[in-house]
Amino acid sequence: MTMPITEDAITKLYCSKYPEEIAIADLGCSSGPNTFFLVSELLKVVDSLRQKIGQKSPEYQVFLNDLPGNDFNTIFRSLSIFQNKLRKQLGPGNGPCFFTGVPGSFYGRLFRKNSLHFVHSSYSLHWLSQVPQGLESNKRNIYMAGTSPPDALKAYYVQFQKDFSLFLKCRSEELVDGGRMVLTLIGRRSDDPSSAECCYFWELLAMALSDMLVERLIEEEKLNSFNIPMYTPSPAEVKYEVVKEGSFNIDRLEVTEVNWNAYQDETDLSDAFKDGGYNVAKCMRAVAEPLLASHFGEGILEEVFRRYREIISDRVSKEKNEFVNVTVSLIKA
Amino acid sequence: MTMPITEDAITKLYCSKYPEEIAIADLGCSSGPNTFFLVSELLKVVDSLRQKIGQKSPEYQVFLNDLPGNDFNTIFRSLSIFQNKLRKQLGPGNGPCFFTGVPGSFYGRLFRKNSLHFVHSSYSLHWLSQVPQGLESNKRNIYMAGTSPPDALKAYYVQFQKDFSLFLKCRSEELVDGGRMVLTLIGRRSDDPSSAECCYFWELLAMALSDMLVERLIEEEKLNSFNIPMYTPSPAEVKYEVVKEGSFNIDRLEVTEVNWNAYQDETDLSDAFKDGGYNVAKCMRAVAEPLLASHFGEGILEEVFRRYREIISDRVSKEKNEFVNVTVSLIKA
Repeated sequence: MTMPITEDAITKLYCSKYPEEIAIADLGCSSGPNTFFLVSELLKVVDSLRQKIGQKSPEYQVFLNDLPGNDFNTIFRSLSIFQNKLRKQLGPGNGPCFFTGVPGSFYGRLFRKNSLHFVHSSYSLHWLSQVPQGLESNKRNIYMAGTSPPDALKAYYVQFQKDFSLFLKCRSEELVDGGRMVLTLIGRRSDDPSSAECCYFWELLAMALSDMLVERLIEEEKLNSFNIPMYTPSPAEVKYEVVKEGSFNIDRLEVTEVNWNAYQDETDLSDAFKDGGYNVAKCMRAVAEPLLASHFGEGILEEVFRRYREIISDRVSKEKNEFVNVTVSLIKA
Repeated sequence: MTMPITEDAITKLYCSKYPEEIAIADLGCSSGPNTFFLVSELLKVVDSLRQKIGQKSPEYQVFLNDLPGNDFNTIFRSLSIFQNKLRKQLGPGNGPCFFTGVPGSFYGRLFRKNSLHFVHSSYSLHWLSQVPQGLESNKRNIYMAGTSPPDALKAYYVQFQKDFSLFLKCRSEELVDGGRMVLTLIGRRSDDPSSAECCYFWELLAMALSDMLVERLIEEEKLNSFNIPMYTPSPAEVKYEVVKEGSFNIDRLEVTEVNWNAYQDETDLSDAFKDGGYNVAKCMRAVAEPLLASHFGEGILEEVFRRYREIISDRVSKEKNEFVNVTVSLIKA
C-alpha cells in the first residue's frame, strides 16, 4: 500500500548521489514473515537502478531495530535463507548486505551521528513511549473515544507531540544530510482525535471490557485506569510536528485506507480465517494481549477476546471497516 | 590475563587521534556473564583517558558478533541493566554507547568497508571454518596428536592458514587505516603442532572414545571420521600469516599460560566444583557436545563425558595443567 512512496524515496536517495554504501534502518522491524520484506524491496529498487546506468552496486548495511523483547534469535536464524534468496533474485554483481540487530526504543538515540542514509518505520510510530499522564477522567474509555473529556484528548495529544518530536530529533542526528525517512502510522483523516475512524477497534474492545465489568468479571477501578498508549494522528498533526522540529523537509505526505481484512487471504485460507471477526480479533489480540495481561492479569484474556471476536464479527458485515494510514516521506535538511 | 595488551591497544588507538567516535567489534562474543566484560573494560580505559586530558567523550558503537545460533535475545534483554551499571561506573559526561548484534561467521565480511576502529576476538579464532579435508589417515585421533601422520598435520595447518588469512583480509577491509585489532587464541609454544601442550584435552577425550569403541558403544568408522575443527597455532605461525597477508603491522605478539582450573573459584564454590575433573570436563563439554552430538548422536553424550571426567580427574593431580594463549595486537597498515 505504502510501498510506492518508499520506492520513490529510495530511488531519489540513490539517484541523487549514487552512493557507494547505503545504511538502512528499519525501526520496529518485529519478527515474522514480513521482517525482511522492506529490505528486499529496497535492494531490488536500487539494484535495478544501478544496473540500468551500469553503476557498481553499493554495499548495504541494514539495521533491524525493535524493543529488546523482540525475538531477534528467530530473525538471525532465518537470515541465511533470506540472503541466499535475495542473492538469486538480484543476480550477480549486487553488493554485500550486512545485517545487524539493534535492540532499544526509537524514542531515544539508537545509532551513531550521521551514520544512516535511509530510515523506515511502518506501523510502529503510533505507539507512544508510555500511557499519557492525566487520564483519570477517561474512566470507561480505554482510548480516545467520542465520550472522552477534552483533558483526556489533550493528554494524548501532548504525549504524541513529545514522543514524535523526540523521534524526529534523534533521527535527525543519526541521518546524514540529504538522508531520507519514510514513516507510516495508523492515523486518521479527521481533525477530531476521537473520530471513529481511528479508535473504532478500541471502542469495540472497550465494549467487551464493559460487558465484563457489568458481570463483575473485572474491577471498575482496573477498567478506569486502563488506557492504550497509542495515538493516531491526522496528516496535519504530523506535518505540524515536522515543521516545528525543523530538521526535515517534507517530500510527500499521504493518507491511504486499508481494509480491516486486507491480509485475510494471504495469511490463511482455512474456513475459520475467512470469518472476519476471527481474523481481526487475532491481529488485535497480538497487539492488545500484552497490555491487557499486564494490567488485568492473564486470567481474563480468553474471555475478553471471545467477546471481542463476537462483537467484531457482528460489525464487520454492517459497517465500513477501514483504517487510515498516514505516510510521510522526509528529507534531512 | 590478556587485558593489559587490549588496554594498551585501545589506549594507543584513542591517544593517536582522540576520535569523536569509536566503533568496536567483538567477534565471537558468545552469550553469558562475560559478554559485556570487554566493552566495559574498553570504555573505562577511554573514559579515564579523556577525563585526564579534559576531552569530550567519544560516541561508541559496539558490534557484538557470533554465529546466528548464538542466544542474542538474552544479550539484548540484559543490555539495559548493563548500560545502567556502566553509566554509573563512568559517571557524567561519558558518550552514548550504541549496541548492535551481528549474526554471522567471521570467516567472511560482516561489516561495511572502513567502518570499524577496534576489533577484538577472544577464544574464538582457534576454531576453523570447517573440519579440514584429507584427514582419512587420522583414524583413532580426533585432533592433531603425537600419532597423527604428517599429511593429517598438514591438512590441519593448511585449513588454519586459509581461514586465518581470510579473517585478516576481511577485517582489513572493515577497519579504518590505523585501526587496531587484538586477537587471543588458544595456541602453543612448541613448533610441533602435535605437542601435548595444545592437544592434550582432545587426547583425553579420544581416550574416552577409544574405550567406548573397545566396548562397542560406538562404531569404528564413526570414530575414524571424527575430527575437531580447531587449530592451536604457535606465535610464529600467527606472525607468518599476518606478514604474508600484508594488511597489518604487528604491535605486540605474546604467549601466556592459563591454568586449566583458573576460573574454578569464580564460577562456583560448591564442593563438586572443586574437583578439577568435573570443572574441566564441564567446560570442555560445552565446547565438544555439539560436535559429538552431530557426529555420533545424542545418545552417547552422558557416557562419553562420564568417562572423560574420570580420565581428567586422574590427570589433573599428576600433570602440568595449563593451556597456552597466543595474543597478537595488530595495526591496520
